[in-house]
Amino acid sequence: MDSVQDLYPSRTAGKLPLFHRPDPVIHSQGAARLEGPLSVDELNAFDGQGYLFYPGFFEQAEIELFQSELTRLSRDPAVRESGAVILEPKSREVRSVFAIHRLSPAFDRLSRDPRILGRVQQLLGSAAYIHQSRINYKPGFQGKGFNWHSDFETWHAEDGMPRPRAVSCSISLTENHEFNGPLMVVPGSHKFFVPCVGATPEDNYKRSLQDQQVGVPDEDSLRELIDRGGIVAPKGPPGSLLLFECNLLHASNANLSPTPRSNVFFVYNSIDNTLQQPYAAKRPRPAFLAERSPKALTPLA
Amino acid sequence: MDSVQDLYPSRTAGKLPLFHRPDPVIHSQGAARLEGPLSVDELNAFDGQGYLFYPGFFEQAEIELFQSELTRLSRDPAVRESGAVILEPKSREVRSVFAIHRLSPAFDRLSRDPRILGRVQQLLGSAAYIHQSRINYKPGFQGKGFNWHSDFETWHAEDGMPRPRAVSCSISLTENHEFNGPLMVVPGSHKFFVPCVGATPEDNYKRSLQDQQVGVPDEDSLRELIDRGGIVAPKGPPGSLLLFECNLLHASNANLSPTPRSNVFFVYNSIDNTLQQPYAAKRPRPAFLAERSPKALTPLA
Repeated sequence: MDSVQDLYPSRTAGKLPLFHRPDPVIHSQGAARLEGPLSVDELNAFDGQGYLFYPGFFEQAEIELFQSELTRLSRDPAVRESGAVILEPKSREVRSVFAIHRLSPAFDRLSRDPRILGRVQQLLGSAAYIHQSRINYKPGFQGKGFNWHSDFETWHAEDGMPRPRAVSCSISLTENHEFNGPLMVVPGSHKFFVPCVGATPEDNYKRSLQDQQVGVPDEDSLRELIDRGGIVAPKGPPGSLLLFECNLLHASNANLSPTPRSNVFFVYNSIDNTLQQPYAAKRPRPAFLAERSPKALTPLA
Repeated sequence: MDSVQDLYPSRTAGKLPLFHRPDPVIHSQGAARLEGPLSVDELNAFDGQGYLFYPGFFEQAEIELFQSELTRLSRDPAVRESGAVILEPKSREVRSVFAIHRLSPAFDRLSRDPRILGRVQQLLGSAAYIHQSRINYKPGFQGKGFNWHSDFETWHAEDGMPRPRAVSCSISLTENHEFNGPLMVVPGSHKFFVPCVGATPEDNYKRSLQDQQVGVPDEDSLRELIDRGGIVAPKGPPGSLLLFECNLLHASNANLSPTPRSNVFFVYNSIDNTLQQPYAAKRPRPAFLAERSPKALTPLA
């Protein structure tokens, strides 16, 4: 942790009020801002709402490849034993597999797909690296939800990510609909930082990935931000692409449908925003959750 | 329990397959079938789908009266100590108040409103009495959901209700929308009975009203019935009325919005279908959950 003042204090003993973030949302400047696939309208939407949603962005053949990779990884005993696998609390089914860009050449290529990486670099105003990658598998009937939170709050407090200069990319492998626990976001909430109360327990990630108890925004702040921006659940067919800002509040409900809700998830961090010591935890989390040897991604030719 | 064969066996040690219910859905016959407010189309819809939904059925002034009664009851220490109150597992906030038609003259009158009772009597083909009544208060952020289940399965196994000849009536006091955990139903599932595995623990209701573990349909049966009928979430403004058959599978998700989702709930049982000894439990549940001194309702003039 720096000896200078922490711009994003959290996990404190007493409650601090939410505040406007001092950092910009879009980090490219001047002419460079328009060098990339995103239009001015898209940039403005991302700046104001904190996300961009493209229903049916990937084609059927691509989705099928990702789905078969998901099946392969979730059945691979070596992957299950690698520690990069999180199980459902009750059913012990696979909930998430991490570091998929390392475990699978197909997902490595996907992470460098210029349709994604070009957008990400334009938003970050720099080269990018993968801070975290995973597949989420939310089984039919068994998949639990998770409560409202900002990813940046955790990455800052527990991983030492200095600034909110990272973009998450979620690619759905199954239809996202009203009944299978789609991601919900609070538009505009990324512009505010909500300091959370309570010290980080040791090895908090072992619990927080199943049921987050620390780094949870207080209800008054949530209410204020939802009163401002409402709640939106971007829903769409398999292959839909969601790009969202690392500080955007999001949540999801349980999957009450018979079919799974699966998605591929990449977090792109700016190469100029690499991890320091955690700001509010004793030890950094394992590398499969938070990359500490960053290597700038090169777009696929 | 009768010494004759139980037509709706459940809570058994081994798994029994689901089956077509032997009882009709609409119990009035001949000319009497058309004596009532429900049209032939409505009767057919209820028969086939298992529910009827009327968005915005009650007027604003009526809703406000019910809302103030809800507030009054949930704050009344005598009500909280009566045992007819169920709290949220974590927050200890009021989740449900039972026997509201006894606790409140306004809810007594509502239960006998001819707009509801006329429909119910037409469906049941007889006079009706209140088997159970309650207000559900699903607080913002804190209200948990409940998994798929048939109410009749519980009322038969634990209360001794002989046949599926009861209708539930839910009146929303707040808007039901995508994000506050609206009721979800499986259309057509009421035509099938899903026997559930596992004996009923003693005083099961103390746990099951917070988190049902027994009397839960197996996933294969759920999948089969959802594949047939899909999932529908009747959503609408405050004052919407939902009538649903006692054996219809239903569930709800957690309330992730800041505002509560509240509703008034009456269960009307046929006066010709009064409770016997429980079919699969040692002792009947308390009277606030299952009326054992039935009195036929008289419609308000």
